[in-house]
Amino acid sequence: MTRKMFDLCADNDIRFSPYCCRARMALAHKGLEAEFIPVGFSRIAEATDGFSKTVPVLVDGETKVADSWEIALYLEDAYPDRPLLFDGEGGRNLAKFVEQWANMALHPPILKSIIVDVHDRLLPEDQTYFRESREKRLQAPLEEIQARRDDHRKALNAALMPLRQLLRQRPFLSGEAPRFADFIVFGSLQWPRLISDYQLLGEDDPVAEWFSRCLDLFDGFGRSAG
Amino acid sequence: MTRKMFDLCADNDIRFSPYCCRARMALAHKGLEAEFIPVGFSRIAEATDGFSKTVPVLVDGETKVADSWEIALYLEDAYPDRPLLFDGEGGRNLAKFVEQWANMALHPPILKSIIVDVHDRLLPEDQTYFRESREKRLQAPLEEIQARRDDHRKALNAALMPLRQLLRQRPFLSGEAPRFADFIVFGSLQWPRLISDYQLLGEDDPVAEWFSRCLDLFDGFGRSAG
Repeated sequence: MTRKMFDLCADNDIRFSPYCCRARMALAHKGLEAEFIPVGFSRIAEATDGFSKTVPVLVDGETKVADSWEIALYLEDAYPDRPLLFDGEGGRNLAKFVEQWANMALHPPILKSIIVDVHDRLLPEDQTYFRESREKRLQAPLEEIQARRDDHRKALNAALMPLRQLLRQRPFLSGEAPRFADFIVFGSLQWPRLISDYQLLGEDDPVAEWFSRCLDLFDGFGRSAG
Repeated sequence: MTRKMFDLCADNDIRFSPYCCRARMALAHKGLEAEFIPVGFSRIAEATDGFSKTVPVLVDGETKVADSWEIALYLEDAYPDRPLLFDGEGGRNLAKFVEQWANMALHPPILKSIIVDVHDRLLPEDQTYFRESREKRLQAPLEEIQARRDDHRKALNAALMPLRQLLRQRPFLSGEAPRFADFIVFGSLQWPRLISDYQLLGEDDPVAEWFSRCLDLFDGFGRSAG
């Protein structure tokens, strides 16, 4: 196969990156197969021959694309006859807002809820880098941050209110059917599901019900990635 | 003119409703003139002959539409050859997410920052209804809520982070040019601008710069509404 994607992995081959998940779902939505090559934080530059310091990186024949957003744009333009990721120009523009919302309103409380779990399940060679970079950014020991996880969980659930309200009205963030905006937020929530046992959502939450619908997409592609 | 819109007003004819502002901007974007008829909270049902308890209400020839979102959908479908409000199906679907985000993440801290100012500037006949309904909903006296306005201002500015980050990359929420998603959030921020002197945004905030660009649209239509 000429198509491959470098995919962040933790120990035991857990593919936990929210960004890689978004790109995997975009490929599945387009019906495109790819070889997903696991790579730890420390080996990304080496694995991609210096092309990128972050994953996902998609290699599609002669084309290399880094960054999940850029990969989605590339796939939409390169495979316009496959199922659409954006449903037109307006959808493409506003999906970027959804991405900013997920990254800035959801990721901080998610990360802080599970930050020790992430650390402990990383490849041993990635743990020091992870601890040092995150403790510097968040200005506290990982253990101290995760100890307040119930507060972070509450903050996450408050931040999810707009999505929760929307999902009371329709099955997917993007409307009657899933589009890339769904995969963006799905990736954000696959991350804790794959790397921690801590439950962030209530069972009867419309967000949890939508998440379960996303897990079932493409013959349970998201579920099997667990 | 056969086209008219019932528009919430406070004392001195201040047209402060975020929802009415969204509909006014949608009409302006479509290049459609309308007579904007001021109505206080207490007289909406009477003014609209029982059609709606809330404004905006658009009357366009034989058609009556209540609710700013429904008005935008109606205008897009009834005037498809005019400038687009959504840029396609995907944009229409995700603009609804932006609406939920504005209403649920931005409106609570905005309202709490200016709730006494809103009360004091309403028509005298609307003040009792406003105080009773809002104190019941928020479980505190209006004065106590507004006294903590600096906290609410901080919460608003934290909630605006995803939009702020997006506006570092492009001039409008919707991309290179404004669409209805911009008018949604613009309406949310016109509300405090028109009815309070309290400054919610920092001057060098990309959100404030974007807001100023929106005020200039349609020959300063938003600015003149102040």
